Amino acid sequence: MMKCRKCNQKAVINMRHHKLSLCKSHFLEWVGDQTERNIRKYKMFTRNDRILVAVSGGKDSLALWDVLNKLSYKTAGLYIHLGIPGEDHYSTKSQILTEKFASENQLLLHTVNAKQEFGKTIPEFSESNKRAKSKPCSVCGLVKRHTMNEIATKYGYDVLVTGHNLDDEVSVLFNNVLAWQVDFLRRQTPFIPAKVGLTPKAKPFCRFYERETAAYAFLSNIEYITDECPFSEGSTTLQNKELLNQLEHKRAGTKLAFYLKFLNAKKELFPEHEIDHFSDELFPCAVCGQPTTAPGKCTFCRMVIRDQELT
Amino acid sequence: MMKCRKCNQKAVINMRHHKLSLCKSHFLEWVGDQTERNIRKYKMFTRNDRILVAVSGGKDSLALWDVLNKLSYKTAGLYIHLGIPGEDHYSTKSQILTEKFASENQLLLHTVNAKQEFGKTIPEFSESNKRAKSKPCSVCGLVKRHTMNEIATKYGYDVLVTGHNLDDEVSVLFNNVLAWQVDFLRRQTPFIPAKVGLTPKAKPFCRFYERETAAYAFLSNIEYITDECPFSEGSTTLQNKELLNQLEHKRAGTKLAFYLKFLNAKKELFPEHEIDHFSDELFPCAVCGQPTTAPGKCTFCRMVIRDQELT
Repeated sequence: MMKCRKCNQKAVINMRHHKLSLCKSHFLEWVGDQTERNIRKYKMFTRNDRILVAVSGGKDSLALWDVLNKLSYKTAGLYIHLGIPGEDHYSTKSQILTEKFASENQLLLHTVNAKQEFGKTIPEFSESNKRAKSKPCSVCGLVKRHTMNEIATKYGYDVLVTGHNLDDEVSVLFNNVLAWQVDFLRRQTPFIPAKVGLTPKAKPFCRFYERETAAYAFLSNIEYITDECPFSEGSTTLQNKELLNQLEHKRAGTKLAFYLKFLNAKKELFPEHEIDHFSDELFPCAVCGQPTTAPGKCTFCRMVIRDQELT
Repeated sequence: MMKCRKCNQKAVINMRHHKLSLCKSHFLEWVGDQTERNIRKYKMFTRNDRILVAVSGGKDSLALWDVLNKLSYKTAGLYIHLGIPGEDHYSTKSQILTEKFASENQLLLHTVNAKQEFGKTIPEFSESNKRAKSKPCSVCGLVKRHTMNEIATKYGYDVLVTGHNLDDEVSVLFNNVLAWQVDFLRRQTPFIPAKVGLTPKAKPFCRFYERETAAYAFLSNIEYITDECPFSEGSTTLQNKELLNQLEHKRAGTKLAFYLKFLNAKKELFPEHEIDHFSDELFPCAVCGQPTTAPGKCTFCRMVIRDQELT
């Protein structure tokens, strides 16, 4: 029998990369402690800050919201209904689970419905952008980034947090390394400080394996959506994750080391950019006012307007 | 039937990453042309230089020697008998094949026998270095690097070339990236210029897939050793190659893009080191006189001397 390192009771999880087995209660405690440690290590936020948690209804974001809440951080949630269909009405089902979590924990939840706010669902935006060969995933990212910053700014939140876990970060890193996207490498970080018009962004779960956030959500009896987004099937991200899992299987800790050593190497590779992640000049969008890299309309508003012209 | 792009005859090879199918004679010509292009692109050497080709008896180094010879470069070979056993007397068999190639092409071949020159074979060095947990591969690399530079210096060769192909380079790159070994990344390059006491090193085959060098050797009727070194079984290098092959299979050209984009990104990542690859001060070894990073004896001489003391 695998035993908990702290109390010698039966362990529920063995984390090979940490050489650490823990029972249920010590694992849940450990996740809280490690999250706190990450928040401090990367100077993400304090208990004075008002935190907006981007929640998808999946295990990572709901677990994160739960952990932050239990650690007595001041949080509210943001759910964006993207209008993604799928067998079980993916978006609607996610929203119901998110609302359930919020009400059970008496937490404020902002909700934005893409169709109602911007006139179209993600699949509809994607469909009408076919000429630009947009994939749903890139359109989806655009809508989410725009909405998250809009709500954070509108209600004066101090920081925006997302549930990205280590596997997410490592998959992105792997992709950026394969194509040596130097600018993307420069910008990948657990915490992006504020810029005029841009709320700071933090990823407090960036050092947890997906398996650990899933175990936390499961052991905490959090009801979350287990389906993958129907559009993610066959995506490069999922392909990369599969390959990285093979590496991890052969050499436990490979993913964590890859990520942490990257963060370390960045200090040497990009010394002058360490603090100022966006050195480019930003301009307010002529329509929505959010910062964008060139004068005129931002990419999001160009998409929304172009779509209105087409229909 | 797959057709040669140049002459419409039956093709013998299809290179998906180049969208290029070629017949036997146009493929052999293409390999020569591309090699010439690489030599010029990375300013490796000219037809005035005396070139020492490190030959293992495998497909890559014999193919490289053949190509350089046919391109009218002034070459000689260097074979190092490392005393590696295996079913078919790996080292001895390799030496016979190398000598056969040299005599058939009337080319000068230097041979060095590790046992005779340094007192021990690679397995013996490795065995007696157990306390230092040396693996045969690291001892082997040390002996080869020492011997190659020794012979190149002794006989006044202008440049030392090795048969590393794209798969070799990409496997090393992948390893260095996984561990973010910034100094190793900085030094990985198709051409290392001269330093006091160090002969320049070039890898003219660095842009060829292993499959291409194998096809060249096969189609040129070069007899080469097909066994893998018995010590390479289960090595990280082979594991990495397997993973990278999966990536390549899904997206043809991934390996080539990974390598070429890396060489490009280096200009941005390491601007000041672009030309001066070894910025560290070097000292002549007190025993062999070859350059080493600290005053006193070099790692090779320390190993050889320690071994003499032990026996």
